[in-house]
Amino acid sequence: MAKKITSRKKDYSQWYNDIVQGADLAESSGVRGCMVIKPYGFAIWEKIQKELDVMFKQTGHVNAYFPLFIPKSYLSKEANHVEGFAKECAVVTHYRLKNSDQGKGIVVDPEAKLEEELIVRPTSETIIWDTYRKWIQSYRDLPLLINQWANVVRWEMRTRLFLRTAEFLWQEGHTAHATKNEAIQETEKMIGVYSDFAEHFMAMPVIKGLKSANERFAGAEETYCIEALMQDGKSLQAGTSHFLAQNFAKAFDVKFTNEQGKQEYVWATSWGVSTRLMGALIMTHSDDYGLVLPPKLAPFQVVIIPIYKQEDSQKIIEVALELKKKLEKNGVTVNFDQRNTHKPGWKFAEYELKGVPIRISLGSRDIDNQTLEIARRDTLSKELCSFENLNDKVQYLLEDIQHNLFKKALNFRSKNTFRADSKEEFVNLINKGGFVYAHWDGTTETELLIKQETKATIRCIPLESNNEAGICLFSGKSSNQRVLFAKAY
Amino acid sequence: MAKKITSRKKDYSQWYNDIVQGADLAESSGVRGCMVIKPYGFAIWEKIQKELDVMFKQTGHVNAYFPLFIPKSYLSKEANHVEGFAKECAVVTHYRLKNSDQGKGIVVDPEAKLEEELIVRPTSETIIWDTYRKWIQSYRDLPLLINQWANVVRWEMRTRLFLRTAEFLWQEGHTAHATKNEAIQETEKMIGVYSDFAEHFMAMPVIKGLKSANERFAGAEETYCIEALMQDGKSLQAGTSHFLAQNFAKAFDVKFTNEQGKQEYVWATSWGVSTRLMGALIMTHSDDYGLVLPPKLAPFQVVIIPIYKQEDSQKIIEVALELKKKLEKNGVTVNFDQRNTHKPGWKFAEYELKGVPIRISLGSRDIDNQTLEIARRDTLSKELCSFENLNDKVQYLLEDIQHNLFKKALNFRSKNTFRADSKEEFVNLINKGGFVYAHWDGTTETELLIKQETKATIRCIPLESNNEAGICLFSGKSSNQRVLFAKAY
Repeated sequence: MAKKITSRKKDYSQWYNDIVQGADLAESSGVRGCMVIKPYGFAIWEKIQKELDVMFKQTGHVNAYFPLFIPKSYLSKEANHVEGFAKECAVVTHYRLKNSDQGKGIVVDPEAKLEEELIVRPTSETIIWDTYRKWIQSYRDLPLLINQWANVVRWEMRTRLFLRTAEFLWQEGHTAHATKNEAIQETEKMIGVYSDFAEHFMAMPVIKGLKSANERFAGAEETYCIEALMQDGKSLQAGTSHFLAQNFAKAFDVKFTNEQGKQEYVWATSWGVSTRLMGALIMTHSDDYGLVLPPKLAPFQVVIIPIYKQEDSQKIIEVALELKKKLEKNGVTVNFDQRNTHKPGWKFAEYELKGVPIRISLGSRDIDNQTLEIARRDTLSKELCSFENLNDKVQYLLEDIQHNLFKKALNFRSKNTFRADSKEEFVNLINKGGFVYAHWDGTTETELLIKQETKATIRCIPLESNNEAGICLFSGKSSNQRVLFAKAY
Repeated sequence: MAKKITSRKKDYSQWYNDIVQGADLAESSGVRGCMVIKPYGFAIWEKIQKELDVMFKQTGHVNAYFPLFIPKSYLSKEANHVEGFAKECAVVTHYRLKNSDQGKGIVVDPEAKLEEELIVRPTSETIIWDTYRKWIQSYRDLPLLINQWANVVRWEMRTRLFLRTAEFLWQEGHTAHATKNEAIQETEKMIGVYSDFAEHFMAMPVIKGLKSANERFAGAEETYCIEALMQDGKSLQAGTSHFLAQNFAKAFDVKFTNEQGKQEYVWATSWGVSTRLMGALIMTHSDDYGLVLPPKLAPFQVVIIPIYKQEDSQKIIEVALELKKKLEKNGVTVNFDQRNTHKPGWKFAEYELKGVPIRISLGSRDIDNQTLEIARRDTLSKELCSFENLNDKVQYLLEDIQHNLFKKALNFRSKNTFRADSKEEFVNLINKGGFVYAHWDGTTETELLIKQETKATIRCIPLESNNEAGICLFSGKSSNQRVLFAKAY
């Protein structure tokens, strides 16, 4: 029987959970706040990883691996980092268990206490810059362009699958440069990579911008971000890229000899995206029937479902395998589901729920007619296609679906993007949901006041915007640019 | 200046460290026992991962991700698992830090103590079988063929880069089956996959066998392994595959309804290889000049080093880029090192140390003659090759080097594999180093006695061996098969 999805209108939050569960993406584990990423969900993440990894390497980066643990003292070396960073971390205090004296189970061995506690990395700037000190002596060693794929832990109290979990998977780039300019260029380049990835692979339109001082990464001088609008009118921060200036170089004493033979501190950036992207992907495209996947990130782009009675099964399987081979030769990924433990109707519902871009069904009569029924997931429309035209048709549909999903999301965003020119208008629009461009006086004080009164935050100061003089809606002071407000995940 | 490598003869252990450090593979970190895998070392690990991942998927497995943490109580659910598994684990006891009252640095918040301690996974059988209970109801849900790439932590007291570190990277397969037979077949299939990978990609010959009861994985009914002989005459366990019977299913109450409608416990396997393979790779092929890499796992297979004076540099760079393109079109990975911060001689030594299979040097006169100098890393021999023949030549050399490395390692193993027929002979051979086939009475008692007297352990009971009646060298009792002894890593 098909699993039931709550409609977005009825309960958006339940709709999200139903899709994550129904499409077999992830589930909660026996460990508080930690998720299990199920095979189908992980296959999507693998696609995301693979494409991003190619983009990182094309822009000159290499991968490496740094320790899971960070000595507690490292965290306090960069003043702003320790001040601003959440202290909810998993702390390792002991290194041994032993059999209980009472003979029941195991206990922590009190004699195996660490001299200095270890923190499970919430992010790796400190351990990495402690390492870079050994790697960087001369301008010849720069730039250092390194990325790592890793798990990190932040002890979140209220968790939601993919969006906010205690442990999550991510990549974190950490680069070192000889000049300020080069580091800023790198920071901008990487937010550009994230934006390209979001739009071209996830089919998710994003706004690139700068965070306000209040929303900056702890230890950064400037934080760039991409923001995407979800279907409930909330904004989701999908990636960040930080210009760290010389802050970590100073904290960890990382200097280099420049071409003139003088010692200088190194300039730094860091940038990351996480399994949170899975949440963004789900909420951008899915509908009340389940997950909708852009073809470029679907674990398989086409599913073939045979419809047969006992007597004609052999012939149908043969033809289906031929068609599968034909499509695969053309670079398309195909799942032929010939399980006889489930009925075709069940399979139709299952792959709709799992967001497979194209469904092909094949029965005995289709073979006689040399035609197939092709259904596309995004529009739920069906059409007939001749065997002969299959490759062209599928190629066309995959491109069209990818394109259509982006267009649809962009339309949604356009319809839900507003300009507010009075406080009243602002409050109404924010409560309605969506992106609201409004003037702000540039102070943290006003920003916090707005958040307190409306729950809206400054998502970013958009990079692409026309300077426009105006008046801050809350303080009445002058402003020279509208910034992007929204309620956020 | 070239980094110095201690010779194997002088100090084998120092030779290993020199190569790991000199070839930029890994280094110790500020965290006890945890390593940093440097970009060049990580690029080799990525190659290993990629090839293995393809093999896992070809054999029907999918990837997923399970939590880093395991509640302490889970570890004691399977009696043999908790009994036999080392208790040296990282234990998380708190989930929050706070600013010190003394205003200096940060401290662990004593109020944020976990009710139940969490163990950083040393292996994931317990958390995964706790999850499988929810995933398996019917025979239709079986088999479950899942792998995960992850970091694990075992608090080793004496660590060595790659060979034994507190944190290491690995993959762990965890499969669930309806029948005992199918689970045993899976266990054997996966040790076969590891063996194929070791021999065809790492060019490292291995002996497949069963562990003795004493050396089995905690919780397993049978452990299969592959063992490789290192250049110092010690054996290295390079991969294991465990038949877990119904032990974990019983401990975590994982039952399924079979086709007859009856409830049964599920059958299990688990199997893994780790970054330890990096150590095996280094020690199998490297020489006193540095690392030697098999072409199939080299981050780049060819390095092109230009040799020019100021005036002819442009022409040489142009030609080198053309040759690079030509090779890459043929599927060869190429690094063209045109840095002018380092001299050609320095580069020659550097890439020798890094084990790049083929080095091509290109100067002005070479262009006039339309020839190149090609040097192969395994034999250190050089020859001239015409521009025209380059693709064929490189293709041939890459295959020949891959083949030659395996042959050389196999020869080494043959020369260092012995049969001992008396206790005295056994002790002499073990002290000399190498594999020693000898009769053993099959008891743990004798096995431990041999270990105590000679430091040799039973590496495995080989799968491919002729039954042969004999007498145990230490106990005088009867034996029907020789087993493989060696000192081991």
